[in-house]
Amino acid sequence: MNKTASKLPRSTAKRSPCPVATTLDLVGDKWSLLIIRDIGIFNRHRNKDFQQAKEGIPSNVLAARLKSLHENGLIRKVSYQDKPPRYEYHLTPAGEDLLPVVRELANWSVKHVTGIKLPR
Amino acid sequence: MNKTASKLPRSTAKRSPCPVATTLDLVGDKWSLLIIRDIGIFNRHRNKDFQQAKEGIPSNVLAARLKSLHENGLIRKVSYQDKPPRYEYHLTPAGEDLLPVVRELANWSVKHVTGIKLPR
Repeated sequence: MNKTASKLPRSTAKRSPCPVATTLDLVGDKWSLLIIRDIGIFNRHRNKDFQQAKEGIPSNVLAARLKSLHENGLIRKVSYQDKPPRYEYHLTPAGEDLLPVVRELANWSVKHVTGIKLPR
Repeated sequence: MNKTASKLPRSTAKRSPCPVATTLDLVGDKWSLLIIRDIGIFNRHRNKDFQQAKEGIPSNVLAARLKSLHENGLIRKVSYQDKPPRYEYHLTPAGEDLLPVVRELANWSVKHVTGIKLPR
């Protein structure tokens, strides 16, 4: 389903109509926003790129998060090989709009955790 | 331990020194940032206040998240009753600095999910 050009349905809000809870229903976990970071900031697009990130995402978790992000219209798949089929992942406009969240998460630990710095 | 006036230790970063991953190590779940929202935006401070929020946080999850947020210096406890002992929860300066993350989460679903609006 192509959700990149229109709003997600109201049923996206699982717990309440609170705008904070609604976004956390989609990406409130330890990994989803790191995949958004990888694509949008570090220019990583393929499975092996995500798996090379320092956090060491387990491959089954990666597959589940990519599936969820795609179903919710936050990333789009681009075929780069036919046999066997392989895809790159890119941010949709909705996914790009999560980058301000990612940046505020980063600002917080740079300010509050010893030795944490933004990459150059 | 009183961590409200100094930085958290480097060991806070569990998965990598990435500033995004480090913050998600602390609050990357479906509930922690809702508790920060409750205290900082909705002026909820006591156990029963949190449990009255529409999302219906399970009491064992609430207790675990309050413990974790307190241990990490994001909230502070203020006694309001001696027998039995009861506490209110308030944001520390580090906890207040998570409010920009909360606001960006809200901005995202207001823009991208049908029918989601900021409270008046």
